[in-house]
Order: sequence, then C-alpha cells, then structure tokens
Amino acid sequence: MKEIPANDPKLRSWVHVPAGSDFPIQNIPFGIFEKDSEKRVGIRIGDHVLDLNFLQHNGYFEGIELPRGIFRKAFLNEFLSLGKKLTSSIRNRVSELLQVGSPLETHGSVDVFLLAAELVQVCMPIEVGDYTDFYSSMQHAVNVGSMFRDPANALFPNWKHMPVGYHGRSSSVIESGVPIIRPQGQILSAEAERPAHGPTKQLDFELEMGFVTCGESVQGVPIKTEDAEKYIFGLVLLNDWSARDIQKWEYVPLGPFLSKSFATAISPWIVTLDALEPFRTEGPEQQPEVLPYLQYEGMKHFDIDLEVGITPKGTQERIVCRSNFKHLYWNMAQQLAHQTVNGCNVKSGDLYGSGTISGPDPGSYGSMLEISWGGTKPVMMKDGSERSFIQDGDTVKIRGFATRQDLKIGFGEVASEVLKPF
Amino acid sequence: MKEIPANDPKLRSWVHVPAGSDFPIQNIPFGIFEKDSEKRVGIRIGDHVLDLNFLQHNGYFEGIELPRGIFRKAFLNEFLSLGKKLTSSIRNRVSELLQVGSPLETHGSVDVFLLAAELVQVCMPIEVGDYTDFYSSMQHAVNVGSMFRDPANALFPNWKHMPVGYHGRSSSVIESGVPIIRPQGQILSAEAERPAHGPTKQLDFELEMGFVTCGESVQGVPIKTEDAEKYIFGLVLLNDWSARDIQKWEYVPLGPFLSKSFATAISPWIVTLDALEPFRTEGPEQQPEVLPYLQYEGMKHFDIDLEVGITPKGTQERIVCRSNFKHLYWNMAQQLAHQTVNGCNVKSGDLYGSGTISGPDPGSYGSMLEISWGGTKPVMMKDGSERSFIQDGDTVKIRGFATRQDLKIGFGEVASEVLKPF
Repeated sequence: MKEIPANDPKLRSWVHVPAGSDFPIQNIPFGIFEKDSEKRVGIRIGDHVLDLNFLQHNGYFEGIELPRGIFRKAFLNEFLSLGKKLTSSIRNRVSELLQVGSPLETHGSVDVFLLAAELVQVCMPIEVGDYTDFYSSMQHAVNVGSMFRDPANALFPNWKHMPVGYHGRSSSVIESGVPIIRPQGQILSAEAERPAHGPTKQLDFELEMGFVTCGESVQGVPIKTEDAEKYIFGLVLLNDWSARDIQKWEYVPLGPFLSKSFATAISPWIVTLDALEPFRTEGPEQQPEVLPYLQYEGMKHFDIDLEVGITPKGTQERIVCRSNFKHLYWNMAQQLAHQTVNGCNVKSGDLYGSGTISGPDPGSYGSMLEISWGGTKPVMMKDGSERSFIQDGDTVKIRGFATRQDLKIGFGEVASEVLKPF
Repeated sequence: MKEIPANDPKLRSWVHVPAGSDFPIQNIPFGIFEKDSEKRVGIRIGDHVLDLNFLQHNGYFEGIELPRGIFRKAFLNEFLSLGKKLTSSIRNRVSELLQVGSPLETHGSVDVFLLAAELVQVCMPIEVGDYTDFYSSMQHAVNVGSMFRDPANALFPNWKHMPVGYHGRSSSVIESGVPIIRPQGQILSAEAERPAHGPTKQLDFELEMGFVTCGESVQGVPIKTEDAEKYIFGLVLLNDWSARDIQKWEYVPLGPFLSKSFATAISPWIVTLDALEPFRTEGPEQQPEVLPYLQYEGMKHFDIDLEVGITPKGTQERIVCRSNFKHLYWNMAQQLAHQTVNGCNVKSGDLYGSGTISGPDPGSYGSMLEISWGGTKPVMMKDGSERSFIQDGDTVKIRGFATRQDLKIGFGEVASEVLKPF
C-alpha cells in the first residue's frame, strides 16, 4: 500500500466531524461550490466545505507551484490538468491545514472559508469531456444476457477477453439533486408492428461508480495497466439512468443511444484514489487468461460498499440493492488500458463508468431490470405500492462508503427525483 | 430560400480570389489559426485568412454586441455560444468589409490582418463537446448489412423509423493534416479460437460530413425539426477512420468503440449553413411514414459533391469515390430532433457526423469496405499497387464543394496520412 500522509487513521481535525460521517479528515474529496455567485473549488470535511481559493489567496499553498486563480473556476478540469503529483500534494497540504494545531485553526473568521455544507450550492465538479460507460460486472452481463437472449450463452464471446464498453453522452451528465425528466422516444410494443412515440414505461437506474481522469495522454500512445492509475484522479457514484423499452428497439446494431443519453447523474464530491488506498482488494481470477496489455500486478480492485434506495414521493425509503465495487470483473486500470490500446487519448475531466455493479445474489443486483427480473418480480415499497421500474415522483439514491476498522471513507450520495415529461 | 445578403452571387471582393476557389466572398467559413503563438478566430477567403480579432479591435464590428476578446480564443465554442443570429450578423458584416469599396480595403497594412493561408497554421476549429455519429445513408447500411448479414434483410427493422446513431469519442477528433497512427487492438482471425493483439489489417476511411452546433438547448426539452437548423452553425468534411477487424470482434452488443475512437478527422473551415442556403434540395421519399417528431417541411437536404482520393507515398492520387451529401436518407434536422427527443441537451461545439455517405452506384461508395466489397475487389492505385484497405504511407483526402451556375462554395479538404504504430 502506498504511504500517503493524509491517509493516517490517527489524524484528527479541528473541524468537528460527526461520528460516522462520510467525510473525515482522511477523505478530503474535491468538488465545486458556489459562493457569492462565483464558482470555486472546495473540499468537503464533515458537514463543512473548505474554500481552496481562500487558502491559495492567503498563502497556505506556498511551496506548491500553482497557477493563479486555479481554484476560482467553474469546474475542476484545469486543476486536474496539473497532474496527479500536484493534486496529491494539495490534498496532503489541506490535510495538514485541517489537523489540530495547524495555523489555519487560529486564522480567525473561520466562517469566511469554512462553510456549512447545507448552506452552499454544490455544483457539477467537472465539465465532462468524454464519458465512456463500461460493462464490467459479469453478473450484470449474465443477468441481461439471460433475460434477453439465452441463459446458456448469456455472455457474448468477447466479454471475458476485453472490458466491453461504449461512448456515452457528456452533455447530459448532471450532479446529484437535478431532477430526471422522464424521457420520451420510440418504443416497439410486443403486439405492435410499428414503433410509437411516447414516454418510457421502463425507466431504470443503474448502480455504477465512475472514475475521473487527470492529465493528458498522447494520441497514438496506449496507457499501460501499470501506468493507468497515474491518470485516475478519483471516483464518484454514478447512476446511469436508462430507458429499457427505448433501448430494446434502438440498440441493434450500434449500441445504446437515446435510452441512456437523457441523463447520467453523479455524486458531487470526487473521492481521490489516494484516499481509497487502504481499501485495495484482490479481483476475481480471470479465465481465460487475458491478453498481455490487460494483465496487471498488485491489487487494483477496491472494496467499496454500495446501496440503492427508492423513495416514492411522501413515503419512506426502501433499500433495493446492496452491492460492492469489488464485484467487478475488470478493474479501472484494465479499463483505461483497453480504452487507449488503439491510441485513443485521455484528457483531464473524462468520466469512465464501471457499468452496473451487480453482485452474486439477487439482493445485490444493480438495476430494476435485474431486481424485478424484467418486470416479473415487482418489489414492494414501504407504502405498499409495487415497482418493476421507476415511477414519476420516485427519488432514487445511491450511496457508497468504504470501511476498515476505525476508518470510513464515504462518497455521500447521488440522488435524483423523477418528474413527468414537460 | 432565405435571403442572406452575404450570399449574393454578384458580390466581388477586393481580396483576390483565384478562379475556382472553394472560398469566394459568398462562402466566409470560420476557423481557428495561430498568429504570434496565439490562437485566433479567422475566416478564409481565396488563399487568405482574415483575422477577426483585428477587425473587432479596430471597431469594424461596431453595432454588433460582442464580448471583448471573443475572437482571441483557442476554439470557436464561445463565439458559437452567442447563438446563430449573432454568428450570422458577423458573417454578413465580414462580407460587407470584404466587398470592393469597403473601408477595410483602404485600412492600410493589409498584411497585418490578411494573411497568406499557406503561411499560417490552421488549427482545430472547435473543442468538441459531444460527438455523435449517425448511420444515415441507406445505401451504406444496405451494403454493410449485405456483406455481414443477409442481403435479403440487410436493413435492421429500426433503420427506416429513426436516424440510427451512436456516441463517438470527442478527444480524438483531429484536424486535417494530423497523421493517423495505425491503431492496434483485439482481432479475432477467421481461423483462430481466441483474439490476438496487433495492428489493424483493415484500416478504412468513411466519407462523411459533420455539422457543428451553436447555442444551448435545455435538458428535458426536445428540439423540433422546424427549430433544428437554429442550432446548426455549419458543416465540415469528416473522415470517420475505422478499423474493420477490431470493429467486427468488439461491436456486439454495445456498438463500435475502439474501432473508431483512435481518430476522426475534420476539415478546418466550418462552412456555415447560411452559405449553403442556395444548395437546398429535396430528400428521398421516406416510406414507411416517419413518426410525427421526425416529419419536416421544406427542403432540408443539401446538394454537395464529395470525393475521396488515395495517394500512396510518392505517387499520384487516385480518386476512389464520388458521392453527394444529398444521398442521405435522414437530414440534419431529423438527426437533431431524434438526438433530443429524449430530452438530451445540445451544446455549442457538438459535432454530428452523417454516417458514411454512399450513393447508389459502386463508384459512389464511401468506404473501402464497400468499394473493395470486403476485400474481394481490390482497387488499383496509380502506381499499380492494389488496395483493399488503407496502407501505411497512404494519404486519404476528402474534398467537398457545392456548385450552382456561377457560384461555388467549397470545404477545402480533410487530408490524413497513415503512419505505422510507434
């Protein structure tokens, strides 16, 4: 495990962190918030947001070479483009400043630079350049293949040879809290000869995580698995909203398009790969052996608990899925090596979704399609209503957190309420 | 036809325009060029580039409300975000300034703001937000379907109901002149049980055009066909580089991914939709009737001649395809209405590829896959060598121009040389 000063479980902050918080001093996730009608880079600690622009302006980043105004930006992209060595230095410095006894503790006027999280507007952290969505959970691929094709041949021949993926839509990636407008599109009903236009009847979530890249690679030059994590800044929770009926009619032969591009929601605080170091774990054995460019050394999977809850309007939440990021067959380093093996270049602020993270048992399936098994096994909500897919007025929340002994590193949540079409 | 002052065929410029030039005063395409290590917005006329930043700085855009420094940018995106009404005003004003007798003619020091095109570096015109690639030529879809599946059922059931498309990779969209590094990837040979890693043996061009959007639409609100052209700033030539062997193994079930994402090349001067007004033409009859959201009025296809030439290193060019943009089944307004029918939002600087534009006869097929019919009918080059696909050292050029009586509006070219992998 890499030794990272900011990760020391013994560190304590002068900022009050409630017990069980997702955001102890060992986390320090990065995001964008709005203050005085201006967007700025901040980090989250406990129930507060720390203004990094204030810290730079007041000389707290002395000794770290930073462009002026790098934290007075609408997105993290420029900061990420400085590369991982620098972004890691900033996280370690912020950790020092948040420790008991640091000069920041006695700076005075703490309200100026440390803001109550509930009082600030938290925004999209990145301007998404490219968004790729992988399909890296074997259980999910098997479930979908079994429902739509043949349980005996659920996986396509290429699945165990490569992290299959496709390009998604960047413009419609939104942050937690932005409502989802139920999408409309072409649907071919079972009994119909021709498609009809209307709102989807099979709106679904997909439980995913996404990683965000920092630095730029050169077009024409693949990234090796051993170098991939240098380009991975951190992770977010990701809900890859899907319309199954639209998907079914449109996706042959060029893949999912409008069934996905209406919205993809992410959690607003990017948890750094550095902060997740203590949670590395072994991945599954990969058989057949993968091609050399996909082979890797060490532990490149991460043990992160995930859950999904549905709250119909005015009622209580029902948890419908508990899964874990470690269930993925393909890890992030393999995904990035595959993405670039053809010379495709990576930029700062790209987003790479894992694909739906379904675990081995039905309670860990990561979409309503799988949970309700294509609508044949509806799920009971707390108010007694049933769900095969997501209804108008439902709020879907994904949460994620990694725990080990006395350490919890959390992601907060990505929450989206579904509204009927305008 | 819309009356646009800058389109008047009688206009003559004080800038010398060689006979047959793609860029008469009636064109005025926009692009980015580098001057004194600084990127700026320019337009092309004849063999010259006109510096719009100079014009703004010297008051020539008086009366048009423009942000300061809008033409001293690395990309056109911010200019495009001002919306089509404003971008059209700028084109009309530039036209006035280029006409014989305008004050600009006698400004003096013409070399400061009017530069020889061959002496300036022309750059990527836009920072591509999202790149969508459609599949809108019926002949192309029939050809591919006939080769890979069944000639009797070459078109998938959805093809005549919607402009099928998929998301492409934005980061690897490059301008004319940037070399293509032959991509590597997974290939499953006919005789093999497992895929192998290596350079593609089936590198191909795809003759396409792409349109670039201006303005932003609201997420959740579809764009109607009658409003779509308000969001279409202009067009470029587009070569959607493809690796057929990689594509064949990877594309089921999520569509083309690494077989395309290594490079997509565009011509550097964006020809405005305004300049193409005189070249509107009828589209094909669409049977079965399309759904209401895809119906349109008026002429929304454009008559633009296209050609592709291959030049093996050190030899002469052989033209392998002559096609026309009007051969598309689905027009741009339908493509944008379909893209947004689910509420997906459009941003300034998105790129939308038409899909390979194949005409009805073999001489108009827009890819080597079709021209050589899957490698069974190689094409003779000028040096006597044969091509089924593109070889290292080959330069592929796409050219496009619209002509009517005494008017020619051209796109220049998109040229790419293929290099072997590093």
